[in-house]
Amino acid sequence: MVKQVGGGSHHHIKDYVDPAPSPLVDAGELVRWAFYRAVIAEFVATLLFLYIAVAVVIGASREAPNCGGVGILGIAWSFGGMIFVLVYCTAGISGGHINPAVTFGLFLARKVTLPRALAYIVAQCLGAICGVGLVKGFQSSFYENYGGGVNHVAPGYSVGAGLGAEIIGTFVLVYTVFSATDPKRNARDSHVPVLAPLPIGFAVFMVHLATIPITGTGINPARSFGAAVIYNRHTGWHQQWIFWVGPMLGAALAASYHQRVLRAGRWKALQGNSTHL
Amino acid sequence: MVKQVGGGSHHHIKDYVDPAPSPLVDAGELVRWAFYRAVIAEFVATLLFLYIAVAVVIGASREAPNCGGVGILGIAWSFGGMIFVLVYCTAGISGGHINPAVTFGLFLARKVTLPRALAYIVAQCLGAICGVGLVKGFQSSFYENYGGGVNHVAPGYSVGAGLGAEIIGTFVLVYTVFSATDPKRNARDSHVPVLAPLPIGFAVFMVHLATIPITGTGINPARSFGAAVIYNRHTGWHQQWIFWVGPMLGAALAASYHQRVLRAGRWKALQGNSTHL
Amino acid sequence: MVKQVGGGSHHHIKDYVDPAPSPLVDAGELVRWAFYRAVIAEFVATLLFLYIAVAVVIGASREAPNCGGVGILGIAWSFGGMIFVLVYCTAGISGGHINPAVTFGLFLARKVTLPRALAYIVAQCLGAICGVGLVKGFQSSFYENYGGGVNHVAPGYSVGAGLGAEIIGTFVLVYTVFSATDPKRNARDSHVPVLAPLPIGFAVFMVHLATIPITGTGINPARSFGAAVIYNRHTGWHQQWIFWVGPMLGAALAASYHQRVLRAGRWKALQGNSTHL
Amino acid sequence: MVKQVGGGSHHHIKDYVDPAPSPLVDAGELVRWAFYRAVIAEFVATLLFLYIAVAVVIGASREAPNCGGVGILGIAWSFGGMIFVLVYCTAGISGGHINPAVTFGLFLARKVTLPRALAYIVAQCLGAICGVGLVKGFQSSFYENYGGGVNHVAPGYSVGAGLGAEIIGTFVLVYTVFSATDPKRNARDSHVPVLAPLPIGFAVFMVHLATIPITGTGINPARSFGAAVIYNRHTGWHQQWIFWVGPMLGAALAASYHQRVLRAGRWKALQGNSTHL
Repeated sequence: MVKQVGGGSHHHIKDYVDPAPSPLVDAGELVRWAFYRAVIAEFVATLLFLYIAVAVVIGASREAPNCGGVGILGIAWSFGGMIFVLVYCTAGISGGHINPAVTFGLFLARKVTLPRALAYIVAQCLGAICGVGLVKGFQSSFYENYGGGVNHVAPGYSVGAGLGAEIIGTFVLVYTVFSATDPKRNARDSHVPVLAPLPIGFAVFMVHLATIPITGTGINPARSFGAAVIYNRHTGWHQQWIFWVGPMLGAALAASYHQRVLRAGRWKALQGNSTHL
Repeated sequence: MVKQVGGGSHHHIKDYVDPAPSPLVDAGELVRWAFYRAVIAEFVATLLFLYIAVAVVIGASREAPNCGGVGILGIAWSFGGMIFVLVYCTAGISGGHINPAVTFGLFLARKVTLPRALAYIVAQCLGAICGVGLVKGFQSSFYENYGGGVNHVAPGYSVGAGLGAEIIGTFVLVYTVFSATDPKRNARDSHVPVLAPLPIGFAVFMVHLATIPITGTGINPARSFGAAVIYNRHTGWHQQWIFWVGPMLGAALAASYHQRVLRAGRWKALQGNSTHL
Repeated sequence: MVKQVGGGSHHHIKDYVDPAPSPLVDAGELVRWAFYRAVIAEFVATLLFLYIAVAVVIGASREAPNCGGVGILGIAWSFGGMIFVLVYCTAGISGGHINPAVTFGLFLARKVTLPRALAYIVAQCLGAICGVGLVKGFQSSFYENYGGGVNHVAPGYSVGAGLGAEIIGTFVLVYTVFSATDPKRNARDSHVPVLAPLPIGFAVFMVHLATIPITGTGINPARSFGAAVIYNRHTGWHQQWIFWVGPMLGAALAASYHQRVLRAGRWKALQGNSTHL
Repeated sequence: MVKQVGGGSHHHIKDYVDPAPSPLVDAGELVRWAFYRAVIAEFVATLLFLYIAVAVVIGASREAPNCGGVGILGIAWSFGGMIFVLVYCTAGISGGHINPAVTFGLFLARKVTLPRALAYIVAQCLGAICGVGLVKGFQSSFYENYGGGVNHVAPGYSVGAGLGAEIIGTFVLVYTVFSATDPKRNARDSHVPVLAPLPIGFAVFMVHLATIPITGTGINPARSFGAAVIYNRHTGWHQQWIFWVGPMLGAALAASYHQRVLRAGRWKALQGNSTHL
């Protein structure tokens, strides 16, 4: 009975089935409303993400001389907390990527088709531009005076350090995404889709705590691009490449680590180990 | 068996049934104790919410020159954390609204009847007045000296910016409420009622982090109204309309986005997508 | 099948059975190892709770002139976070009370017998004394110089305000405990025992954020008593009654609210409402 | 049916089976890819843990004169939050130890074999060295100037206080690990593997809040060792023994408390008590 409906048991070896990899292109998906709804959901979620997070960045800078400001800890919470909330809200609609590096990593692992990946990335970048645009619209002078929330390598750090920080930071995020959405885990725990957003959001929170002082923390090319477009000054553009190359490399490394190392071998072998935790 | 009781499985296409929309008026509900118990629960929860959160606002203002004060980060935690706790406690009794904008959004989506919506909103406003009243009762001079926790647009921002911040902030909250309580999600994950309060609380936390510097953050007309009644000065009243119009508009937009965009189309189409996360 | 084992379904009216109230005295429980193990677990948990939380209080006071100190926000996290961790760890052994007011509330609701309630309260008080004693043992001069973590009403507040803050604060905590452990909720959601510690911990976090500036926040007579015994000066003792009377009254009110208002009426009536969230 | 597959029900007495203790040596495990994959996962997780956490420590020290720095609260979050994320990610692969003291405690309880314990500890120490090495690589001068993230007993505390703080701190962590992974709990709640990482992460967060001012908080010999190797000065090495002896003693005490006190007695006796929460 349980076997037939596929839920509940986790001592049962046959209940896990690896999903077939996505095809590179699936013409059928382009004629379904679910595809466009997912693209819209990515646009709206990235807009809300940048609107809230960049507003916190600007507010924190304004209040910096004042001990009541939220500081780096508050900024890190805003990025991580919004990812938690928005992945929770959009997971069932679009998969809850909200980040071109996540989309790229899932594309490399053949979890999404190429047209879907491209449509998501365009929607994420447009959403980010609109989200940062709203912050500028609501508080124009503060936005201009407090750096516009753009990413760049801070004084005292080399370009290599900034690039490395983006690579490893995105690795942490995409590794968490892969771990949380592993179909093996899903087979055992039917409610993973509900719980996965929390560690994903925490991964974003953690990386921001560590690397805001280094690059302002990108690990999301749409975030860096949206801020650069709206601020539109040299500081936002001249190192923009770091915030695309770093995250994409980090995502590719995480996808490769998950697919080649962690997912290699047989399910049965893993299960012998699963009593530790 | 599992199929008949509707729980457990999430690979089974038939297990999802859209609940019938609530009628506009349901005379039967007015003679049931459960209705009045729900109204009482909304009153008590909103009282506790405002009591804790406004006490934190006043305490943070008093300690502002002192590095040990909780600052904007602590205030944001208090609003978000209390919503988490109280939605958790009251979800099974009243649905856990604790906010007229949430009630309004759920009414627009025909999840609650008109009499219930009105009774909840009255209970929430009375609860908010009592909660802020307790803060004033316990610490009268501090309450008066530190602004009474009222909402108003901060110097340096336009009325339009304040209104926009309230609209988008409430959109984030009500969008999260709709996502968390989507019956499709419930069909797949039987324990959503237990888990939903956390992202809802985080949505409140996030919006406060971003917009406390702009409006003090309303996104809850009962909160703004209760503080205005107890403080009872011009600063609380002259922009009170912003804290009703903004949240109600934001809630209506979120209800519309969820019902018209995300819920449109067929369940089957969505499911093809649900393997991503 | 599911009906017989009582799990899984939540659309099935018969799956909920109200447990019989505990007898006032159950002689059988006194000869079982499980009883003494539970008492030991309460002792150890309260010891660890006070050890960590009072160490944070002393550390925060020492670092107060330094912006890097954890401040009131960090202190509130330490109390709330430890309760989350320790309720999680001890829930299956002793019920995870770690607080005489919680034990008293559950005794009033006839969830624990009188001998168990008394044994828990003694164990909690002894554990609290040992936990604070360890802090003093490790950092004697700092402990003495920074107030010993005792509770008293802060200057600028009346005794009535302090008592009221303790009553309402404990109400928030014990109301959350009752909501989280409601057998109706358990019937619907079989994993509540795993999830309940988080909102309970957050309730403690929230109350501390709000009332540390007023009384240092007791809401736990063992915590206040342990600190008073080890610090052993007038400041710890002369208002000790507030930190017993307030929490016990708050717990009684919460027990009464839950049993008389929220649990009154029939399950069936409630269920008509449970689709909102 | 449910009985046969062992999931779902928790009113059913027979569904709990104590796993056989691990043998001291299991030659078979050394020829399985799952073993080496687990060792690699421990290496990578400890590397990421130290990379993020020590970067936060250095960043917090640099920003200390500035109110926007993350302070002790942010450092504590980074250690606790990373453990939450990484235990979540690696639990299904290696058990998610990321700490020689956790591995030692689980070895004492016969949950892992001796070769696995040794391989994990070596991998954790190497991972920690690489993680701290990356921080130094990215921000060499800041790393040297701000103390390298090494553990030592702070001025004003005795060696005994430092050792005691490490023992009790590790006790809190390992007690939480044992509570979260108790097979009795697993029998009742099939999704514990998904939820356990959160209280484990919070235990780490709590201990850091309390003892950063005393020892910088070790409770993880790999963390202390990795920082000492990369910083390579007297301050990192002369008290290194404290950060091995303390955590190992704390882990042994927690294993003993869990196995001898909490797990003693019969399951049936415990169940009579499990209705409290």
